[in-house]
Amino acid sequence: MTKPIEVRNPRTGKFDYVIIPPPPRLLAQQCKRTRRAQVRWQQLGLEGRIEALQQWKEAILSGRDRLTEALVNDTGRLSTSVLEIDSFLSSIDRWCKLAPELLQDSAKNTAIPFIALQQTSVPYPLVGVISPWNFPLLLSTIDTIPALLAGCAVIVKPSEIAPRFVAPLKTAISVVPELRDVLTFVEGAGETGSALIDNVDLVCFTGSVATGRKVAEAAAKQFIPAFLELGGKDPAIVLESANLELATSAILWGSVVNTGQSCLSIERIYVAESIFEKFYHQLVAKAHRLQLAYPTVESGEIGPIIAEKQAAIISNHLLDAVEKGAVIHCGGVIEDLGGGWWCRPTVLTQVNHSMKVMTEETFGPIMPVMSFSKVEEAVSLANDSIYGLSAAVFASEAEALEVAQQIDAGAISINDAALTALMHEGEKNAFKFSGMGGSRMGAAALKRFMRKKAILIKTNDTNDPWWFETGE
Amino acid sequence: MTKPIEVRNPRTGKFDYVIIPPPPRLLAQQCKRTRRAQVRWQQLGLEGRIEALQQWKEAILSGRDRLTEALVNDTGRLSTSVLEIDSFLSSIDRWCKLAPELLQDSAKNTAIPFIALQQTSVPYPLVGVISPWNFPLLLSTIDTIPALLAGCAVIVKPSEIAPRFVAPLKTAISVVPELRDVLTFVEGAGETGSALIDNVDLVCFTGSVATGRKVAEAAAKQFIPAFLELGGKDPAIVLESANLELATSAILWGSVVNTGQSCLSIERIYVAESIFEKFYHQLVAKAHRLQLAYPTVESGEIGPIIAEKQAAIISNHLLDAVEKGAVIHCGGVIEDLGGGWWCRPTVLTQVNHSMKVMTEETFGPIMPVMSFSKVEEAVSLANDSIYGLSAAVFASEAEALEVAQQIDAGAISINDAALTALMHEGEKNAFKFSGMGGSRMGAAALKRFMRKKAILIKTNDTNDPWWFETGE
Repeated sequence: MTKPIEVRNPRTGKFDYVIIPPPPRLLAQQCKRTRRAQVRWQQLGLEGRIEALQQWKEAILSGRDRLTEALVNDTGRLSTSVLEIDSFLSSIDRWCKLAPELLQDSAKNTAIPFIALQQTSVPYPLVGVISPWNFPLLLSTIDTIPALLAGCAVIVKPSEIAPRFVAPLKTAISVVPELRDVLTFVEGAGETGSALIDNVDLVCFTGSVATGRKVAEAAAKQFIPAFLELGGKDPAIVLESANLELATSAILWGSVVNTGQSCLSIERIYVAESIFEKFYHQLVAKAHRLQLAYPTVESGEIGPIIAEKQAAIISNHLLDAVEKGAVIHCGGVIEDLGGGWWCRPTVLTQVNHSMKVMTEETFGPIMPVMSFSKVEEAVSLANDSIYGLSAAVFASEAEALEVAQQIDAGAISINDAALTALMHEGEKNAFKFSGMGGSRMGAAALKRFMRKKAILIKTNDTNDPWWFETGE
Repeated sequence: MTKPIEVRNPRTGKFDYVIIPPPPRLLAQQCKRTRRAQVRWQQLGLEGRIEALQQWKEAILSGRDRLTEALVNDTGRLSTSVLEIDSFLSSIDRWCKLAPELLQDSAKNTAIPFIALQQTSVPYPLVGVISPWNFPLLLSTIDTIPALLAGCAVIVKPSEIAPRFVAPLKTAISVVPELRDVLTFVEGAGETGSALIDNVDLVCFTGSVATGRKVAEAAAKQFIPAFLELGGKDPAIVLESANLELATSAILWGSVVNTGQSCLSIERIYVAESIFEKFYHQLVAKAHRLQLAYPTVESGEIGPIIAEKQAAIISNHLLDAVEKGAVIHCGGVIEDLGGGWWCRPTVLTQVNHSMKVMTEETFGPIMPVMSFSKVEEAVSLANDSIYGLSAAVFASEAEALEVAQQIDAGAISINDAALTALMHEGEKNAFKFSGMGGSRMGAAALKRFMRKKAILIKTNDTNDPWWFETGE
């Protein structure tokens, strides 16, 4: 028997939901069944798979209210939940549109006259997806949709911190006969995730560096591909030539949207000396205008901190910074309202890289602003991190491009924040400790779910010149 | 101080060469220096890098005799050494010709009107290559050449069992100023390889499953990509419709070339019942015509077994097979001639999958032949393996293609053996325990040495509609 896990409500602090992880043996059986079902899913062909996904989408649309409600209970915020559902639904359409071209195997010409090459792609039968709590729906489906289109079966293990959205999703899956055997959501925590890795052919993981390392090592032991998207400590660099009004609005949004609970949120800001004062004053003024989404989900912009553990981390980073001399201009405390943990947009100055708030992932609506005198200094500060997920640069386009080239990160937004959340065409690797494996965006995102197979055909029937001479 | 390693000569059994592994601290310094030098190498641009590689090639050509001699001392065989050097030199030309197209970053159009996408590729600064003893030159350079062209610096740790070829290669490197700081060969065994992994940004490994697993886990710990090419137990399937004369010649060559010391050699043969007798009689007859390359390197086709440990494994597999009822038709014993270990082409029948010779990598000139009645049986036997490197099918083209689709391996040769050794255009993944990571052939072979970076530019300067409303 496995132990039930109680789930906390981020707005009330009450444990009002329960999940029951499957016993490892049952999970292994489930994986076997799903892998067997994959054969039919692959044979269905891309058209059939697209149709099934579209049916799923329709079913989700007709149960949309229940999904929204569950997601709001998981995360405590409304507008971002609505956005999540929209993005998820449009990602189904986007991939269905792109897949036909991406799945075409190209016939190749070869330089060797008597060998013909046929290049084919074979889906990994069973993909495991382990997803986090910050965007529960989006991050449990971002890899799932392209994997399904590639012809894989998928088992998803969402975070035990925000699992309520799974029930309405399952209801929608159950009405699509082709899909229900090849797309499964299992409930559980770390142990279930670990058992899942032992039973799949490829694993996608979004989460912390510490857990990501365990996932990578477990996958390595079995030689299965691991695609990891881990933490980030995204810097924003603001040069003198920046449009200040634009920069403060974009950085504010990029830092505190979803209460900063996003791997690609801006977590540290480097501003040219000459505009430093003006910049942070403007940022503080704009930050002051944002309100908590309390007491109702409909009010304000800033939702509660979803994970209790994270509230402690944010608090710890703020205390550490203040102890080391940082000055807080707004926000700056974790508030307990109605049982939930909240944090208003927080701007800090007098910060440096001895502080956790500048080096470790804070995952909150925290904006530490530091000044620099030379561009090289800004680049070197931006690169002084174990992370390399993404970054933002605000400046005249030419200047910004030059800086972007020098930043060790997979995606750089210029004169905006987190553009990868909007535009999914660019392939990007996660640099340094921010991840491992091929891009989850662009064409590669789908292709990484398939193994390449080369069929080489000898097209004449004479002996090859290098064979041993064994004729009589 | 590190302990010198004595190196055995495969023809004489004498330990007539010594290598001295670098102390770990020196190796770490070497890696740092090489990583620093990479900056210039990348700035040199592709044209400059091509020129440097061509100069290296010229230098190798002018010292070719010494390289051949060293390689013959490493491996005990001549004609395959000549072939190795030829293949290595032509791989330089092939990659230099392909690289310009492969390194072009494509500008992409996007569906979002106010975001422009620039896609760039950034080489991993320092690549570590750990290579085996069976094709010492070829397998230490197969990943090195595309990595260098991609703009990476490379440190190679060749096998301690066949390291003599390194000295003449180093001489050739030393005359190319641009190359000598970014291409280094270090001598040593497992410990040196392990220390290398801790100091590079990407690792390529060719070798055993056991060591490959260690490499993959060490790489996972640091989130660096590991490209592994491990063992194989390549099956050949011969259907009734096969051209028998061709099949026996191709399979004989594919099984015993380089004395079977090749990861993609044919290690098990499944033949349709109706032609089974005829097939193995013909194979035995042809095998009898091959001679050992003894007493001189110029004589015969079959060189000595390079690694002493491997001789013991081959012997063990043969004994195990005979004990379990296999019948040996030719060869079948490990001979001690002049201090070296030798094995003549060996054909076995009455074999089954309870025998190591059918399930574990033998890495010798051993051809176990088993009959089957139905095609499905042949496919299922071929797939009954922990390995999935490559395979061969002999039949009418249509029939062969159908079988090829069903085989879980990265490359299938049709009516020939090991065609991937000749044609490098086809991308192929290693299936199951045969490896991990992207294809070492085709365009992917070069592209895997670069990280993708997406630069996304906001092209208007109005507020984005989803930003917080914080205006006054």
